Parts: sequence; C-alpha cells; structure tokens
Amino acid sequence: MAYFENVGKVAYEGSQSQNPFAFKFYNADEVVAGKKMSEHLKFSMAYWHTLTAEGNDPFGDTTATRPWHSYKGMDLAKARVEAGFEFMEKMGLDYFCFHDIDITPEGSTLKEFFANIDTIVDLIESNMKSSGKKLLWNTANMFTNPRFVHGAASTNNADVYAHAAAQIKKGLEVGKRLGGENYVFWGGREGYMSLLNTDMKLEQDNIARMFHMAIDYAKEIGFDAQFLIEPKPKEPTKHQYDFDAATSIAFLQKYNLDKHFKLNLEANHATLAGHTFEHELRVARINGMLGSLDANQGDMLLGWDTDEFPVNVYDATLTLYEVLKNDGLGKGGINFDAKVRRDSFEADDLFLAHIAGMDTYAKGLKVAAKLIEDGAFDKVIEERYSSFSEGIGADIVAGKTTLSSLAEYAMNNENPRPNKSGRQEMLQAILNQYIYG
Amino acid sequence: MAYFENVGKVAYEGSQSQNPFAFKFYNADEVVAGKKMSEHLKFSMAYWHTLTAEGNDPFGDTTATRPWHSYKGMDLAKARVEAGFEFMEKMGLDYFCFHDIDITPEGSTLKEFFANIDTIVDLIESNMKSSGKKLLWNTANMFTNPRFVHGAASTNNADVYAHAAAQIKKGLEVGKRLGGENYVFWGGREGYMSLLNTDMKLEQDNIARMFHMAIDYAKEIGFDAQFLIEPKPKEPTKHQYDFDAATSIAFLQKYNLDKHFKLNLEANHATLAGHTFEHELRVARINGMLGSLDANQGDMLLGWDTDEFPVNVYDATLTLYEVLKNDGLGKGGINFDAKVRRDSFEADDLFLAHIAGMDTYAKGLKVAAKLIEDGAFDKVIEERYSSFSEGIGADIVAGKTTLSSLAEYAMNNENPRPNKSGRQEMLQAILNQYIYG
Amino acid sequence: MAYFENVGKVAYEGSQSQNPFAFKFYNADEVVAGKKMSEHLKFSMAYWHTLTAEGNDPFGDTTATRPWHSYKGMDLAKARVEAGFEFMEKMGLDYFCFHDIDITPEGSTLKEFFANIDTIVDLIESNMKSSGKKLLWNTANMFTNPRFVHGAASTNNADVYAHAAAQIKKGLEVGKRLGGENYVFWGGREGYMSLLNTDMKLEQDNIARMFHMAIDYAKEIGFDAQFLIEPKPKEPTKHQYDFDAATSIAFLQKYNLDKHFKLNLEANHATLAGHTFEHELRVARINGMLGSLDANQGDMLLGWDTDEFPVNVYDATLTLYEVLKNDGLGKGGINFDAKVRRDSFEADDLFLAHIAGMDTYAKGLKVAAKLIEDGAFDKVIEERYSSFSEGIGADIVAGKTTLSSLAEYAMNNENPRPNKSGRQEMLQAILNQYIYG
Amino acid sequence: MAYFENVGKVAYEGSQSQNPFAFKFYNADEVVAGKKMSEHLKFSMAYWHTLTAEGNDPFGDTTATRPWHSYKGMDLAKARVEAGFEFMEKMGLDYFCFHDIDITPEGSTLKEFFANIDTIVDLIESNMKSSGKKLLWNTANMFTNPRFVHGAASTNNADVYAHAAAQIKKGLEVGKRLGGENYVFWGGREGYMSLLNTDMKLEQDNIARMFHMAIDYAKEIGFDAQFLIEPKPKEPTKHQYDFDAATSIAFLQKYNLDKHFKLNLEANHATLAGHTFEHELRVARINGMLGSLDANQGDMLLGWDTDEFPVNVYDATLTLYEVLKNDGLGKGGINFDAKVRRDSFEADDLFLAHIAGMDTYAKGLKVAAKLIEDGAFDKVIEERYSSFSEGIGADIVAGKTTLSSLAEYAMNNENPRPNKSGRQEMLQAILNQYIYG
Ligand SMILES: [Co+2]
Ligand SMILES: [Co+2]
Ligand SMILES: [Co+2]
Ligand SMILES: [Co+2]
Ligand SMILES: [Co+2]
Ligand SMILES: [Co+2]
Ligand SMILES: [Co+2]
Ligand SMILES: [Co+2]
Repeated sequence: MAYFENVGKVAYEGSQSQNPFAFKFYNADEVVAGKKMSEHLKFSMAYWHTLTAEGNDPFGDTTATRPWHSYKGMDLAKARVEAGFEFMEKMGLDYFCFHDIDITPEGSTLKEFFANIDTIVDLIESNMKSSGKKLLWNTANMFTNPRFVHGAASTNNADVYAHAAAQIKKGLEVGKRLGGENYVFWGGREGYMSLLNTDMKLEQDNIARMFHMAIDYAKEIGFDAQFLIEPKPKEPTKHQYDFDAATSIAFLQKYNLDKHFKLNLEANHATLAGHTFEHELRVARINGMLGSLDANQGDMLLGWDTDEFPVNVYDATLTLYEVLKNDGLGKGGINFDAKVRRDSFEADDLFLAHIAGMDTYAKGLKVAAKLIEDGAFDKVIEERYSSFSEGIGADIVAGKTTLSSLAEYAMNNENPRPNKSGRQEMLQAILNQYIYG
Repeated sequence: MAYFENVGKVAYEGSQSQNPFAFKFYNADEVVAGKKMSEHLKFSMAYWHTLTAEGNDPFGDTTATRPWHSYKGMDLAKARVEAGFEFMEKMGLDYFCFHDIDITPEGSTLKEFFANIDTIVDLIESNMKSSGKKLLWNTANMFTNPRFVHGAASTNNADVYAHAAAQIKKGLEVGKRLGGENYVFWGGREGYMSLLNTDMKLEQDNIARMFHMAIDYAKEIGFDAQFLIEPKPKEPTKHQYDFDAATSIAFLQKYNLDKHFKLNLEANHATLAGHTFEHELRVARINGMLGSLDANQGDMLLGWDTDEFPVNVYDATLTLYEVLKNDGLGKGGINFDAKVRRDSFEADDLFLAHIAGMDTYAKGLKVAAKLIEDGAFDKVIEERYSSFSEGIGADIVAGKTTLSSLAEYAMNNENPRPNKSGRQEMLQAILNQYIYG
Repeated sequence: MAYFENVGKVAYEGSQSQNPFAFKFYNADEVVAGKKMSEHLKFSMAYWHTLTAEGNDPFGDTTATRPWHSYKGMDLAKARVEAGFEFMEKMGLDYFCFHDIDITPEGSTLKEFFANIDTIVDLIESNMKSSGKKLLWNTANMFTNPRFVHGAASTNNADVYAHAAAQIKKGLEVGKRLGGENYVFWGGREGYMSLLNTDMKLEQDNIARMFHMAIDYAKEIGFDAQFLIEPKPKEPTKHQYDFDAATSIAFLQKYNLDKHFKLNLEANHATLAGHTFEHELRVARINGMLGSLDANQGDMLLGWDTDEFPVNVYDATLTLYEVLKNDGLGKGGINFDAKVRRDSFEADDLFLAHIAGMDTYAKGLKVAAKLIEDGAFDKVIEERYSSFSEGIGADIVAGKTTLSSLAEYAMNNENPRPNKSGRQEMLQAILNQYIYG
Repeated sequence: MAYFENVGKVAYEGSQSQNPFAFKFYNADEVVAGKKMSEHLKFSMAYWHTLTAEGNDPFGDTTATRPWHSYKGMDLAKARVEAGFEFMEKMGLDYFCFHDIDITPEGSTLKEFFANIDTIVDLIESNMKSSGKKLLWNTANMFTNPRFVHGAASTNNADVYAHAAAQIKKGLEVGKRLGGENYVFWGGREGYMSLLNTDMKLEQDNIARMFHMAIDYAKEIGFDAQFLIEPKPKEPTKHQYDFDAATSIAFLQKYNLDKHFKLNLEANHATLAGHTFEHELRVARINGMLGSLDANQGDMLLGWDTDEFPVNVYDATLTLYEVLKNDGLGKGGINFDAKVRRDSFEADDLFLAHIAGMDTYAKGLKVAAKLIEDGAFDKVIEERYSSFSEGIGADIVAGKTTLSSLAEYAMNNENPRPNKSGRQEMLQAILNQYIYG
C-alpha cells in the first residue's frame, strides 16, 4: 500500500547525521521561544507541486517518475490522495493546500467537475479524520483552463466570469467542509498581456465585485476562513494586478475589502517584484495584513518563478523574524509552494527537498528567536530613533507641531543633534554571528 | 549678454530640415485635437539638469563646459538664472521647475540659505514677469545634504525632521510667491538602506505627519498648487517608500492624503519599478491621480536612473495617449527631468537634447490624437468587453449577482460565449501604421 | 484543400491600407539599396511556432485553434506540411526552418523516428519542388525529450550523448537532402542547473568533440551548409554555455572551431543576456561571425524568452543597419522565431503577426539603407576617429609606438587635442528623423 | 600619531565574543587545509574605498568623517599613507592595492602628477619596509579624469591614448619599484555609450595594441607581475568591452594576449553581468585564467555596483571552494573592493566592515576546505559522470568516435543507461549542513 517504499518516517537525527532522509535541524517537539517548533512552523504540503506536477518546462516534456503513474483518471486522483497522506505522515507535515483541479480531473462539464470534486473530497476528508492532517487553504484554479485565457474575474467574457464564480462557490463549500483555515485568491490571469486591448478599470472593478460576492457567500454558509490574496507581479501575464503587497493593499483599501483580506506572501513573487521577502513581510506586518506564507526561493539571476525549495538560512531567519514579530501567523501557515528541479525527477527527491526546506526554516526559527530574545536589533533600533521619544521629536509624533513651529525650532537650533552611523555592516556581522556563532 | 551664443531661437522647419538646431516635428502653434501643441505640451526646463548639473558620474569627474563657469557663489547663481531664461526663450519652453538648492548656495545656516533663496527668487520673479515664463513646480531638496543621510521626513533624527519642515515651509512660500502650479515631493532618502536598523512604521507615520502639516500650511498661506508625490522604487536608497504609483496610492489612502495629492510620474522611475511608463499613467489615471510628468527615458538594460532625453516615439505616443484620455494634465505639465549624456558635455548639447525630446513628444502627440480620433483602439475595446453591457454581464456590473446566481447561470449555460483572440499583434501593427503610415 | 480559408495571398497595399491582411510596408519586389526587398530579407517561417505550437504556457493549457486539429499522428504531421506550404505561399515567405521533432512524432525507437522523418521529408521535398520554397536551416531538437534532462552533448550519460550524435547525423543528412543553407545548434540543455553537481570542463570538452564530429561528417557527406551556433544565456537551464556572442566566440576559438561556425543571433536571447540585439550583431560582425538571424523581440520587463513578433521599427532599423554593413547575411536569413501570444489563439493571428513582423523589417530596411546611403552616421564616425588617421594616431594604429614613445609624446604635448561632444542626442534625433521624416 | 584612536589591534576572540572590534571567525594563524588562514586569504585593503572615498553618491554629498580631514593637498596624501598603514596593521591586512590617483593629487601636468606619485611612493615604500606590508596590485585610473570621457585605450582621441600610455608606463614602474605581485587593468571607460557613434573594431584593436605595449614595457624593465584584466559589464559606460570572464577570454584569445593575462574577478561585477561569482570563478579556473579576487557583494535587487562588504557565507564558501580547487590564487589575493554604506560614515565603520568581510571569508574557507576534504561534492560528481570513464563514454573522451559510430551504437542500444536524479536539493542541504552543522 505504500507509495514511497524507499523512505520511512523522517526523523530528527541532529546536525551531524549522515542520513540524507533525516532532519538535521528540524525537531518538531523542541521548544523555541515558548512553543514547539511544529507550532511555530505550520508546514504545509502543496498538492500541485508534490502530487500533480510532472517536471515539464517550456522547453521540455515531463521527467517525473512517480509511484502513481500506473493509474489513470479518477483512480489516479484517488492514488494521489493516498500518496499525499502517506507523504505528509512520513514528512511530519501537518497541513496541505490545493487548487480544485489539482485533486481531480475537470471532466467535460461543471457538473461532472463538481461531482469529481465531491468524490475526492470524501476521500480527503476520510484521510484527514484518520490522520489528523489539516487543510491550510484551498483555492480555485482559474488560470490553467483555456477558458481563462483572458482572465477569470478580470475576463472580458461575462460567461467566463460566471464560470469562475461557480468555481469559487464550490471552493468555499469545500473549504468549509474540510475545515480550511484560510481561502486563497491568486490571480494568475488577472492582469493584462497588452494595455492596447485592456480596460483596466472595468477589470479591477469586476475583480472587486467578485471578492465582495465571495465574502457574502462565505458569510452565508458560515465559512470563517481567513481570505488571502497572493500577490505576484507577472507571469503568466505581462502584468498581474496584485503586483506586490503594497499594490494589493491599495486595491483592497480602494474597494473596502481591507477588513476582509490578508496577504499570502510568496518569497519568489517578492523577488520577481523587486523586493526581498522580508520587505514584503514587513509591509504586510505594519499594515496588519500578514496572513500566510508560500515558502520557496527564486533564483535572483533568473527572471521567472522558479519556485525552488527554500535552502537559504539568511532568508529563513529574516522571514521568521518578521513572523515572530507579528506574534505568529494566526490562521496562516507555511506552505511549501516549491517544486523539485526538473532534473531531480525521482520520488525520493520530494523527501530530500522538503527536508532541505524544513531544516532551513528550523534553523532560521532558532536564530530569529534568539535575535529577538537578546534584543540584538531591537536595542539598536530603540536607541536609533530615541530622538522621537522626547522633546521636539515626541511633539512631532504626538501631532503637536506645525511647519511653522518646526521651522522656528530649526532656525534657532544652534546645535542640532548630529547623525550617527547606521552601522549596517556591524548589524550584518551580528546576524552572521547569530547564525554561525 | 547671451550665454548661448551659438544658438538662436529654435524654430520649426519641418521633417526634412537639415538644421540640427531646428524642430522637425514640434510646431508650437499647430492645432492638434482642438488645441495648440504648446497647450497640450506644457514643456518645462528642469533647472538642475540644465543649469546646475556638471556631468560627473560615480566613476568620473565633471565634464560639462558651460558659459557661466567663470562665475562663483551668488554670482554663479544669478548667472544661471539669466542663462536659464535665455535657454527657455530660445527653446520655446514656457515652464521651469527647481529644487531650492538648484538655484542658490546653501550657505552655512538656514537663515543664510533662505536669504540666498530670497535674493535669487527676486531675480527669477523679475525674469518671469518680463518673459512670461511660468513655474510648473518647485520642491525642497532633502536628499543631497549629508544631514539627510538617514532621510528627511523619515529620518531617525528629530532635529533633521525639523530642518526638513523648515525647507518645505520655505518651498511653499516660494511656490506661492512665484505662482507655482504644483508642488512636488520626491522622497529621495525616504526609504531604507537596511531593514536591520529600520522602524518602517514610525518612518511612514512621520512622513504622513509631514504631509499633513504641509497641507495645513499651504492652506494657511493660500497656496493652492496641486501637491504631487513622485514615485521612485530605489536609488539612492535600497528601497524608497514611494515605490511606484500603486504603492504611493496605498500610502495616500491609508493616511487620508489621497484627496490632497496627485502623482508626478517619471518614465525612468516607472521602468526601474518594473513597469512601462504607460502602465504607471494608466494606474494613476483610473484612480484620478494623474498629476504631472517627468519626461525622460531609461535604458532598459541598465539598472539605474539614466534620465535620458525621451527619443522613443512609441513611448511618447502611449504616454500622450493616456494624457489625452485623461483630458490633459490639469495643472500638471511635462518636465524634462532628463540630462545630456556625460559625453555630450557641450552647451550646444542642451539644445540638441531638448529638440530631440520635444520633437519626440510632438510626434507622439499627433499619433495619439489620431488614434483617439479614429477610435483605433477604443472600438476594439468596446467590442471586446461588450458582454458586460447586456444580460448577465450587465447584471454583474450592476451588482445584481451573487456567487449562487452566477453559479446557477454557469451550470445551466450550455453554450457559453466563446473567447475571441485578443489580437495583440494586429493592434501593434495598427500602432505602427499610425506612427509610420 | 486550403487550411487557411479566411486568408488569401497577402499583398502589398501601402501604408494607408485598412486591410489587416495586407502588407503596409513590405513590397517584395521593391528595390532598396540595389536589391529587391525579398533578396535582402530572406524571411523564414519557424515550423515550431507556426505549425507545432499550441499556446500552452507554464500556467496554462493549450489555447490554439488550428485547422489541422482534426488529424492525429502521422496524418497530423502530413497536414502540417501541407498547411505550412500554404502558409508560406500566402505570406510570401521563401524559406522555412525546423527541428526534427517539429515535423514528425518521435515514435518509440530511433529507427521509427528516422523512418517517420524520412516519410515527412519526402513530402517536404515534394512540396519544395513544386513551390520553390527553400530550407534556411534545420536542426536536431535535443532538449525536449526527458532523455536530455541533463543535456545532450553536455550530458553526464554517454548513451544519451550517443543518441544525440545519431540525431545530429540524421539532421545533417536531412539538411543535405533538402539543400539546407545552414545547420543550427542551439544548446537548450547544454549548460547547468547547479554548479554543485557539474563538471563544467568535461561538459564543454564533450560539446567541442561533438561539433568536430559534426564537421567531419558534413564534409564526409558533402553537406556544405554554414554551421551556426545560436547563443542564449539561460532558460531552460540556469546557465547555458553559449551565453552570448562573445562567449560563443571564446568557446569556438578555444576549440579551434571558429573557422567552421558562425552565429545565429536571436533578438530575445540578446536582451536576456543583457545586450541590445544590435550589440550582438556588431560583435559578430566585427569578428566575421554574423551568420543568420532569429527575428523576434522580448519584453524588456519580463525575464523570460517571450519570442514576440518583432514590431519595433527602431530595433529593426538598427538590426538591418548591421546586416547591410555586413554586406548581407550570406547563406543566412531572417527566421521568425516568434510566436503569437497565447491569447492570440486563432489561425488568423498567424498571418496578422507575420504581417506585423515583415512590415516592421521592411520599414527598418528602408531606413537603414537611407542612413547608409547618406552616410548619416558614417560621416560622424569618420570625423570622430580622425585623430587615428594621422600623426601619432596613425603611428599607434600602425604599431609603431611603445609606451615609452607615447609617454614622451604625452609629456611634451602642450596642447593636447580637446575632446568633443559625442553628440548622442543629436544622433538619436537624426535616427528619428530618418524613421519619421 | 594614531588616526584611529578608538580602535586597537583587532584580535580573534572567537564566535561568542561580544566585542564588535574583534574577529569571531578569522584566526590568522589557524591552520586550514595545511596552511595558515592568512596564507590562504591574502587580504588586501583597497586604498580608494578605505582612504580616498568620501561617501558621496549620485544624489548626495560626502558624508564620511575621517581623522585626516584636517589636511589638504600633499599633506592629505601623506596622512592617508600613514593612516592606511595604521589601518592595515590594526586590521591584520598584509596587502594593499591602489590606483595612481588614489594616492596623490593629479596636479596640473603629467610631470607634476608623476612627481607627486614619486613623493608618495617614497613614503609608501618606507612604510612597507618598516611594516612588512605588500603591494597586491596597482593600476592606473583612466576613467575619472574628464580627459577619459570617451575612453582611454578605446578613446577616439589619439592624444588621450598617449596620455593613458604614459600613466600605464608610470604604473608599471611604480609596481616594479614596490614589488607589486600583479598589475590590473579595469577598463572603466573602455566601452561605449552609444553604438551610433562608435567604431567598435578600431577601439578594441587599439586596446589590444596598448596591452601589447604594456607587456613589452614590463618585460623591458623586468617587472614580472601577473597582468590582470578585471571584467565588468557596464557602469559607468552603457557597455564595457570586458563584459565578463568569457568575453574577456575571447578578447585575449583573439589578440594573442591570453598567455600574458589572467582575470581579476569581482563578485559584484559578476552579478551585474548576470552570473554568480562562483560561475565566473569556475569559467576562469577551467581556462587557467583565475588570477585574483575583488571581494565584495552586490545587492541582487539593485542594478548598479554597490560594492558592499561580503557578508554572505554561502557566497564565501563557494568562492573559496573554487580557489582551493585552483590550488590557490598564485600571485593573486583577496582585495576588499568594498565600501562602507554612505550611512556608515564613521571611521569605526571601516573596521567593523572589514571585520565582517574577513570573518565571512574565514568561515567560508573552513567550510570549503571541509567539503573538499570529505569529497562531499567530488564523490557525487565522479559517480555522476562515470559513464565517460568506460566503454563508449571513454571512447568519446578519447576522440575515437564519429557521428556514424555513435549513431550505430545508439541505434543498437536496446537498454540505454537511465538518467538519474541530479539531486540538487540534497546537495544544497549538504552545503547547509557543512555550514551550520
Ligand atoms: Co505561491
Ligand atoms: Co511561485
Ligand atoms: Co523625476
Ligand atoms: Co530619474
Ligand atoms: Co531562436
Ligand atoms: Co527565443
Ligand atoms: Co573591482
Ligand atoms: Co565594483
């Protein structure tokens, strides 16, 4: 019955282990900053990359060898469910995420599609009960089918818009049934290929209308998941409307949606938008919009979404630093929206890659927790901005000043406070010391 | 008395002229789309690039040869004013823009600086009266002086914040006195070099406070210029808070500033942020935030702000297309925030470069006007989105649908409207035909 | 029997034509610079983009609607041949290019693959005879099949290497039979995904060995086509060994292959490598390596190979400027390695896109020819470098100087020649005048 | 007499030290892979960034506060020498590098410039003798002075070319006198701003002529330093001819210069060219061209040369991995071509930044040495390419095969060796384990 015969339950063996199929840093029950690692790190399996993807790329056919390749159609869909729960169990992943079309064939009609979904959701639900695994989020794929060539909620074709609405409705129902903690919108085709043929305002208005309908329906059925927008700047479209965190926030504010949504931030999407991941997290955090993470990494020298497993401890540390500063992610979690390289095509690579990612985040968590515990950066920042805690600075923050009062102060200020070095290199060295020390 | 002895008044000589110092396309009085070219194109001289810049770059010393190089100190400042008005007159530029430090030495105290400003503003005012030239906008430079090393409104040093407030106050007074039509904020140091030492929330809160004080003071003195934010994603900072149009809009919305500001968009800043200029213009336009333009172009293969003169007619056409669709720029104009290349160091190059830029925009204007007059794109777009003008589409737009009603529609929709080609290549060919035909 | 029923023979109707299916600028028989446009512009249809591609992308399924979709297997392969010749005829394209797997299914063995190739090549040959169409180049696809996951000539698997050799051998035989004027190598997987598992030296040595074997075999069978390398920096690999023109030249020089190869340069590959297309052409030209062109354009704000139809007349002008300066491309031609956008999915779009591209190149050709005829840039350059035609400059060029003699000259040179402005903006304006004037 | 009063000799205190002015990882005398750390890591101070730079940027004036700011002219130049040797002594740096204009004012004539150089070189020589510090390399700055606006060896002005030759001659003499181990050419202006006014072939021919003259002169005076080219793709020029390692190698091969030169590779230049630093090192290494390193790091999201201190241990590990595989750098060393951030403007930051960089490289060295000692990657690679060590693979490598023999082999190969996973993620996890384990 096992699909992954080569690999048993992956265990923590410590940093000196020579066993490729063991954790070196991730120790689920180890307590860090007052909580178990597994509580900080609500790791999730991405159904699409782990169970559905086949290793093709724009210049190459599928390479993946998978133990469920002997099955077809609904049998294949069922095999993937079984394999997926086996994988989560062996990897120690407590959560999973999926798009509707990941779990089942679409069939030729919406009716057939939804019937297929119901069949597979039955199986998923039963596996969830027996295993205790949970749904971090689900979503409707509204970008793969040719129908969505011009967008889903931003399409110029009202019938396609209605179709998208039906998929979202079903997605919300499935999420409710499976106890999904979040529900995600990634607008893969909600953008444009060319401005020459695009009515940007109508398209964005229509997206907002769809979101309001989704909020209403979730309320109607009592589905209290956190709604999340996942920003991405481009690809497959030339421009995607949810370009980055700030752009998504502007959209949500404009359409009175900001109370109903948070952001699902992905590392590779951040860098494609010209930002570090920690930047996007910080922007979301200070706006109360930090929802959930798609954990991966891009290649800074490649211009497309490579969705690599996160193996950089600097990035993981700064990521989890923001998460800890946010008091965690609430309903959100850490979804490995990451795929094995096309040339890592064996089923074993799925384990090796998740181990690499989980160990990286575990190491990052410990470093981040220590940095915060020691106030390594906090003390520097507190001292650095201290001029705003007293005197004229405090007045500014309290809203007691005007241009005139400040100008008068400045004109008569014979000994202005000198600036001090920002000490960036020292802080970078401290970060290194915390990571390697 | 003439500084630019080689060049007389630049005249329109038509597209076949062999005279480098003549316009080939820009014919100020020619009527396009119901208005004179010069009314559509409120061209402005950037004081800094034309009169103050010296041709240095990070690896090289100054190269510029300028007829005012024999002067020093306030005499130099005065010579530049004279030269500037001669330049505007000869070039047929009706507007100019400046930072406070462009026009005068800073001196050693704020008092001295403001006194210097007053002296030069007297001279500018007098020249404006005699010449009829107008101030498109002025601004306070709060990024060059070492004092602003950690920012101005986002500094960690309250005394620096007060200093910045004093400069803004003076800037507003100067703008009022000279009849400035706009007042610009470009936050060259309002951002961060490293997140490790940065309190992003406090910094942004403080920027918002400064803006509110500026609004209050402008109201107090009866200065009714349009306030403008100029977005730029980075450089000199690692990250600038006003990253792009959408980010700036998010900020303005959050802090209740969106009614008081529009955007001054720069082409090179758009591309540094990963956008086309026409994208930024469209975003601003559909949000009612299109204020004014910094006309230039970047090099798409170089990662810094090259501020080249705009010579690409495609870009100019799509730029002016958005401007015309916006019914013009209101108080805004078209400021050549563009500098001659370091190796175009002769004073004559200032003319040749402005001619290149003005001709490019003139050609773009005519093409854009014709495209709109013919409805070349409008007809395609109207037809393309027509499904939202009737039936279910009209219901969606009218807010009469729910996920349930749309799902029911979709489930029973046996013959959904087929998608049609977006015809991007045909539209690009049409654009070419309008430009070259 | 016609596949493209909507469209007849595309004719030149001039720049004012309202017919989308007519040429506005490309007039095949019009003489430019002493030759017919069609002789300058040996346009070629790319079999893969026109006949084989289906409009899928990494996030979306196929969208293309094609009149041969009712066929399967070898019947489909044959239908594509017929459709392709009809397309070339209607479009007025004299050449075509293909990969082995474009024209036929691979089957399950090399034997079957080669038998399929023979069948289809029979049909192609027969169509060539009746139509007069010619083969610009063919090539072996050694990147799509999973076998090539680790490379073909750079694979770590000797059996895969042998397989690749067999495909190349067949390719050379097919090229010989069809009178191919060139034979292309694009190393889509000849590079690496990670340096951690890569023996770069062995891989490059093995590629060179393969090329030498190919040269020997072509000689053996009397196939005198020009061999071409097509550089690309990356995608699908993290790094492709033939990064750009200069890198490819370094490789060819090192392995004594430079006498046997020229370069097939693609516009989008140039920009992905951080270069303009004209830069790559210039580098190839001054090294005697300019072979053939893959005509397309990228999106400068997108980081992957978008292979768009070329619609930018600036680029076309500068491209054809280099081609004319090279006295043409010899055996080479202009292959539209360009695909319709995924949302331009109708068969008609194939025509509209080729019209856009051919008109763009036609316009560019005329401008480039005029620029050269008038010496518009040549005169400037000749004057600019004139100091190397006399005196010390001539001595330098003649190799008569030493550091000591030059130092003595410089030490005693009391009035060194002043530098003059490079006049970039004026030259850009002249370019605009030639294009639009 | 001390310039840096705040800081004494920087000592190794181990990874737990709380002293910002101590090394945490760099322990000069500790033996790694059979040699002292200080022998592996021939660290060098960059005169320009440490002693000459003032913290200005394109949008901001100088910020640096330096203890030699009270001096002017030649006194300043002398003070910098004293301060520099104090700095090297306190930092434990054994080497330094400089451009001619770093060490002295240029004066108004070449004669004066060379006299100034002689004066300062006297002082440097005397300090070298007393301190034992050594010259890693020197070079002539031929890019800052306006004279070089159009290039130095690639200028269009023969008199400027002669001037450059004089500077190079002097540089070689100074290098000889001070026992410089290398001599560097960085062609900061050897490239173009626009192809429209550029004769690329003449420019490159002239550069090659200059290099041959330099080789001849070095031979004449018995200066046996290693000549090095430092590639950089762009900035300040639009395009620099020595774009990257491969491009530089192509140039050196073409002009028969490859036996006389190696490469001085800089990390930030690598990434600006679209490469990782380890890629450039690998390319140089397998071509026998790995000469010396400019150690720094760029910001992958910024498009200009930020020259940051190297603080990334991943990069340092992969850098030193290549260095160790190359059996060291021979005459080359590790020059900190790195500058403190503009907002790290205090003199103390110079120490803190060098400590950060040296610790990073020390940590990287130890990890790299261990990886090699254990064969962590070597074993994987040996196994991976083993099919080329026997049978058909060995025949290929030995040059015994032809396309025909390989095709026959492939046609009859009923059981081709299957490909195996490239195991990238596992190797990345192993790298992490070596770094953090
Ligand atoms: Co994602
Ligand atoms: Co992604
Ligand atoms: Co601007
Ligand atoms: Co700019
Ligand atoms: Co191509
Ligand atoms: Co391509
Ligand atoms: Co360097
Ligand atoms: Co650098």
